Amino acid sequence: MEKRKDDHIHLAYSDVSQVGSPWFDEVLLIHNALPELDLADVDLSADFLGAKVSAPFGIGAMTGGTELAGKINAELAKAAEEFGIPMYVGSQRVALQNPSVRWTFEVVKQHAPTIPKVANLGAPQLSALPEEKVVEWVVEAVEMIDAYAVAIHLNAAQEVVQPEGEPRFRGVLEKIKLVKRAVGKPVIVKEVGNGISKEVAERLAGVVDAIDVGGLGGTSFVSIEGARALGAGLELYRRISEVFKTWGIPTAASICEVRSVFGGYVIASGGVRSGLDGARALALGANFFTMSQPLLRAVLDGRIREEISAVLTELKVAMFLVGARRVSDLAKVPRVYGPRLREWIEQRGLRC
Amino acid sequence: MEKRKDDHIHLAYSDVSQVGSPWFDEVLLIHNALPELDLADVDLSADFLGAKVSAPFGIGAMTGGTELAGKINAELAKAAEEFGIPMYVGSQRVALQNPSVRWTFEVVKQHAPTIPKVANLGAPQLSALPEEKVVEWVVEAVEMIDAYAVAIHLNAAQEVVQPEGEPRFRGVLEKIKLVKRAVGKPVIVKEVGNGISKEVAERLAGVVDAIDVGGLGGTSFVSIEGARALGAGLELYRRISEVFKTWGIPTAASICEVRSVFGGYVIASGGVRSGLDGARALALGANFFTMSQPLLRAVLDGRIREEISAVLTELKVAMFLVGARRVSDLAKVPRVYGPRLREWIEQRGLRC
Amino acid sequence: MEKRKDDHIHLAYSDVSQVGSPWFDEVLLIHNALPELDLADVDLSADFLGAKVSAPFGIGAMTGGTELAGKINAELAKAAEEFGIPMYVGSQRVALQNPSVRWTFEVVKQHAPTIPKVANLGAPQLSALPEEKVVEWVVEAVEMIDAYAVAIHLNAAQEVVQPEGEPRFRGVLEKIKLVKRAVGKPVIVKEVGNGISKEVAERLAGVVDAIDVGGLGGTSFVSIEGARALGAGLELYRRISEVFKTWGIPTAASICEVRSVFGGYVIASGGVRSGLDGARALALGANFFTMSQPLLRAVLDGRIREEISAVLTELKVAMFLVGARRVSDLAKVPRVYGPRLREWIEQRGLRC
Amino acid sequence: MEKRKDDHIHLAYSDVSQVGSPWFDEVLLIHNALPELDLADVDLSADFLGAKVSAPFGIGAMTGGTELAGKINAELAKAAEEFGIPMYVGSQRVALQNPSVRWTFEVVKQHAPTIPKVANLGAPQLSALPEEKVVEWVVEAVEMIDAYAVAIHLNAAQEVVQPEGEPRFRGVLEKIKLVKRAVGKPVIVKEVGNGISKEVAERLAGVVDAIDVGGLGGTSFVSIEGARALGAGLELYRRISEVFKTWGIPTAASICEVRSVFGGYVIASGGVRSGLDGARALALGANFFTMSQPLLRAVLDGRIREEISAVLTELKVAMFLVGARRVSDLAKVPRVYGPRLREWIEQRGLRC
Ligand SMILES: Cc1cc2nc3c(=O)[nH]c(=O)nc-3n(C[C@H](O)[C@H](O)[C@H](O)COP(=O)(O)O)c2cc1C
Ligand SMILES: Cc1cc2nc3c(=O)[nH]c(=O)nc-3n(C[C@H](O)[C@H](O)[C@H](O)COP(=O)(O)O)c2cc1C
Ligand SMILES: Cc1cc2nc3c(=O)[nH]c(=O)nc-3n(C[C@H](O)[C@H](O)[C@H](O)COP(=O)(O)O)c2cc1C
Ligand SMILES: Cc1cc2nc3c(=O)[nH]c(=O)nc-3n(C[C@H](O)[C@H](O)[C@H](O)COP(=O)(O)O)c2cc1C
Repeated sequence: MEKRKDDHIHLAYSDVSQVGSPWFDEVLLIHNALPELDLADVDLSADFLGAKVSAPFGIGAMTGGTELAGKINAELAKAAEEFGIPMYVGSQRVALQNPSVRWTFEVVKQHAPTIPKVANLGAPQLSALPEEKVVEWVVEAVEMIDAYAVAIHLNAAQEVVQPEGEPRFRGVLEKIKLVKRAVGKPVIVKEVGNGISKEVAERLAGVVDAIDVGGLGGTSFVSIEGARALGAGLELYRRISEVFKTWGIPTAASICEVRSVFGGYVIASGGVRSGLDGARALALGANFFTMSQPLLRAVLDGRIREEISAVLTELKVAMFLVGARRVSDLAKVPRVYGPRLREWIEQRGLRC
Repeated sequence: MEKRKDDHIHLAYSDVSQVGSPWFDEVLLIHNALPELDLADVDLSADFLGAKVSAPFGIGAMTGGTELAGKINAELAKAAEEFGIPMYVGSQRVALQNPSVRWTFEVVKQHAPTIPKVANLGAPQLSALPEEKVVEWVVEAVEMIDAYAVAIHLNAAQEVVQPEGEPRFRGVLEKIKLVKRAVGKPVIVKEVGNGISKEVAERLAGVVDAIDVGGLGGTSFVSIEGARALGAGLELYRRISEVFKTWGIPTAASICEVRSVFGGYVIASGGVRSGLDGARALALGANFFTMSQPLLRAVLDGRIREEISAVLTELKVAMFLVGARRVSDLAKVPRVYGPRLREWIEQRGLRC
Repeated sequence: MEKRKDDHIHLAYSDVSQVGSPWFDEVLLIHNALPELDLADVDLSADFLGAKVSAPFGIGAMTGGTELAGKINAELAKAAEEFGIPMYVGSQRVALQNPSVRWTFEVVKQHAPTIPKVANLGAPQLSALPEEKVVEWVVEAVEMIDAYAVAIHLNAAQEVVQPEGEPRFRGVLEKIKLVKRAVGKPVIVKEVGNGISKEVAERLAGVVDAIDVGGLGGTSFVSIEGARALGAGLELYRRISEVFKTWGIPTAASICEVRSVFGGYVIASGGVRSGLDGARALALGANFFTMSQPLLRAVLDGRIREEISAVLTELKVAMFLVGARRVSDLAKVPRVYGPRLREWIEQRGLRC
Repeated sequence: MEKRKDDHIHLAYSDVSQVGSPWFDEVLLIHNALPELDLADVDLSADFLGAKVSAPFGIGAMTGGTELAGKINAELAKAAEEFGIPMYVGSQRVALQNPSVRWTFEVVKQHAPTIPKVANLGAPQLSALPEEKVVEWVVEAVEMIDAYAVAIHLNAAQEVVQPEGEPRFRGVLEKIKLVKRAVGKPVIVKEVGNGISKEVAERLAGVVDAIDVGGLGGTSFVSIEGARALGAGLELYRRISEVFKTWGIPTAASICEVRSVFGGYVIASGGVRSGLDGARALALGANFFTMSQPLLRAVLDGRIREEISAVLTELKVAMFLVGARRVSDLAKVPRVYGPRLREWIEQRGLRC
């Protein structure tokens, strides 16, 4: 498990982890040559599931469970605290099963005491647990990082392409309902790179507080597992990874899918690579966006503050150039969609 | 004839035989992040023209008639029997005309006694035969492999690009009706790489039990014959091959063409290269799919079991990721079509 | 003048003369897997403006006026006579002004006594001539080759890109009417590589017997003149050629333009490169098609018979594969248009 | 400031300054094979905001303020006077703040006494000035070059990507109204490379006399500032430049945006690279077009007369080939739009 976690970090750092396109280039926000405001008037402050944060941007779910992961979490937490933005942790199962690595998650609450933190557990694991155990795990995961919200990740594609995978999704929706009842916190359901469809969002509506689309077009665990399979000489897994590498709903399309049927909070992730991408996600109807891989790289390269700062500046500039004073103004800015996104919206009957 | 058969095998093995695209990449099945089933729950069992088989997948029509062809048929038959999937043989004319090579087809019933086997004859040959002779041939072809069904192949493009070709299709439909009357078995009409249109499918409706679309985008006999012509210095045939290399209806489009007007059993072939392609074919309305060239390569490379196993796993994974428990669920999964397929469907007035 | 004519021949031979695409690849004729006829049943015979010819295919307007041109015309004429197909000559002005080169055109009637021959004069030249002189020229041009029909070419783009050009089109339509009145022969108006629009076709309807679209996508005189300008150091002309190189209406689109409003005889030319392209042109509504540059190359390479024979075979094969027994059947074969041609048809309100 | 001005000139000269496409290749004017006029009949004369000029073409806003800029302005002015076409100057702020460089603008009225000259000031600077000062500046700018009209440039994107930028647009519209009231001359509002939307044009309607679209697809100040940031090691600015390099409305689309809602005079600029591009801009509804960077290059290369002459010839040829005798005829010529421009027009509800 430890080896796999560190493999994930190293492979995620490399280009092999990045697949396809999130289709943000299919969202052309119309330039406003006469914004009638100063750049300094642009206000990035946002609401994260009821909490005030300094921007509609946060650190996506990544890691925990190893020495290296602990260090990364500590650095990310410090930066999040400084900038006043939310942070997810990676899947906490490892620490629930092995208390000796709890510290690798606990560092987050130590270094980021005031910002909203998001706990993280995987749907396949919950699927296999008895009800009492589910409640016990969630309560402990929240406590571990003093979480403001809990994320349950859906990663069906990842589970099928790894030899040690657990492709079990029977009863998952009931377990999610149970989590929502058991924990007095906002619950987020998130994908990890293959996106959420409107059919899935419809089933989650009224059940969870937020959907994090986790769309196709940035980090791909199908590709990461394929690289591992190649290294291990597992031909069948390598081949499945190859076939399903571009499987999924591009992030921009997934935001439209979810927003069309889901009245709750929508988080954009998967291939967001600049504050401009973030502005496009918000224009499509997301309330918030996260980045993962680029922040991992920035931590490992010792430039995490520069990275976050650049994203926030780009978001501010994008808002200025469309004449949006507040984050909520982005939902109304004129735009033109590229042909692929337009077709998708039309064929799927979305409102976007 | 013997030389031509072996040439076909060698050229089919090489990349020169593969032309264009079957447009499966124009069929995006929508990811279901919450499939509410386990991978183990997915059931691949299928019906092949009334026979129970373990998957909606079989070995396409290929060969027979030479020493090498006999060996290939034996290996394919063993694998088909092991996996419990149907198998076609190649055109049996050679054995009807030359009894000394009957064994190259008979090996199939010896090594695959229980699975459905499909006999194979060409339309141009039937066109030239008197009625009694047609019946005699078909009966003998069925008996030769203990066939469950009979396939008549239409290969107009192939016949025009080979010097020894017989581009004769006058009266073919009447001969097909005769075959259907004469043989108490399901009759399949199949193309070999240029696809079946709705106009042709309309003429076949009520006449035959199944249509195997044999669409453009995988193995191309136009290209294979072009390579032979080049080798033989036949400039005119080489040039015709060049001009008509991409002639035909891409497999995905052909499935829509046929399904729109034909109520019978639809088999997808031509450029199917993974279980995911197979799932897309079934989503478009096919009941079954076959592969030919990749299985030929796998036999010659000594990895036929691995190949079939990979295809079945990929199909299972695709079904899991769209939340399809049974094969028949695939016809209803949400999807988005790419621009070429969408235009085709619209301009041709298809229902797909 | 002599030098220019030979320059044209040498530059037309080279690839620099070929520009853009005639959009024949935007016309997908639907494969008919069950043509219900034999290849031998396909009948290529056609009507050329009232004359019976052996195929709907002829030799386009090219040359005359120099030693080399005379030899080319003789070779083309011999081949046309052998195959029983029509032949145009190049612009005859040179011979009208300089009787010593009349023989370079007269060889055509000597070597091709029985086939329909087409005389050729340019609109800009007629524009400048007094009425009596126009009649005199036309009568003489007809007599020179014993012409069956007279073609007047419109070449506005060519005239502007050459230093010695005569970009004069004032009163051209009246001169065309005069030619029609003066000569008891079918009159064809043709472009030379930039196509005829429906607006122009409407003006020609009721005036001339035939329109030869001469569309964009094959030989480009704008490009040929650009190469000459480059060689001569004429920077302004080189630049204009560069800017207007892709100017014009692609041949496939031009056929639709003309066919939508013109009830007369339609000839397709410009970038026809195989009998399959010819079949596509006929499917779009043309009655006849010609090739120029490929036949020039074939003559110079000593394989003119092989070239014509290949084109006729390809046409026959295309007809067989769509189940067309006669040339007139092509207009009704099912087809799918590519996105560019489809958009063009829609935006221009054409019927095609 | 002086250094920045000269940097701009040198970077504008190089290819790094040219970004994206103005989408003129999405405007296909339909060839008129029978123009019924002579090239010599084409009349380029035009109206520039009430003044008679010899063509609908002028020299765009560029420079002033340095030794080199002064020389360039003198050369441009001489050529403009010779050809009888209008000329803008670059932003005059530098001369208003530093009288010692006034001469670099004054050369324009000295060398081009009779043609319409356009004064130039930036919106962000006006935004910061008190009302009286605005009037004072405008009056002085007009006097400095004996201007016929005044242009106020909007350059929001440029201001955000330079360290010394002034991204201030609060109150700009009021300042523009003030300028219009204070100066008895036509007022033009212009972008500098990111285009004007219909929403902005609606706000300017009734306020200003002309809109110069300054669209995306030619010279990009975002890219120029990015090259400066790279040279200066300013990573944040380099990155913002990278992210926003293709930000904006392509020129062809911007002409449609503005023309759809604005009844005044429309000037096309941004990526116009030939007289044919100019003809396309006029066909879309512009009244006039300018080029900047190509004229800067031509001056520096000592071939400004050749450049202007080529543009005028190309425009004349384009008009001839569509059968347009006068500039105003261009608005009615038949055309086909490419897919991107068509989608834009449709999604934005434009009339074009
Ligand atoms: C190294 C790494 C580890 C990850 N681990 C988890 C995880 O444990 N749980 C989870 O929900 N998502 C995990 N993710 C997925 C991210 O939350 C996110 O959905 C995905 O990386 C797409 O965003 P990106 O393209 O910005 O990287 C991980 C991503 C990375 C790069
Ligand atoms: C070596 C070879 C021989 C073939 N021979 C026949 C044949 O005799 N009869 C027939 O109906 N199809 C024949 N086919 C065509 C296949 O059945 C199938 O339609 C075609 O190969 C497209 O499938 P693929 O792209 O998966 O190879 C042959 C294919 C190959 C590769
Ligand atoms: C060498 C050469 C000379 C030509 N000369 C003439 C001519 O004199 N008159 C004319 O109407 N067309 C002339 N054409 C144009 C052709 O008739 C035809 O419209 C054009 O070449 C496009 O056909 P292609 O692409 O098959 O070559 C000439 C073409 C070539 C290649
Ligand atoms: C060197 C240079 C300096 C410029 N300076 C100004 C300026 O001071 N004011 C202004 O309104 N536009 C300025 N522009 C922008 C041009 O007016 C024009 O909008 C832009 O260059 C796009 O046109 P082009 O693609 O033909 O160059 C400048 C352009 C260049 C190339």
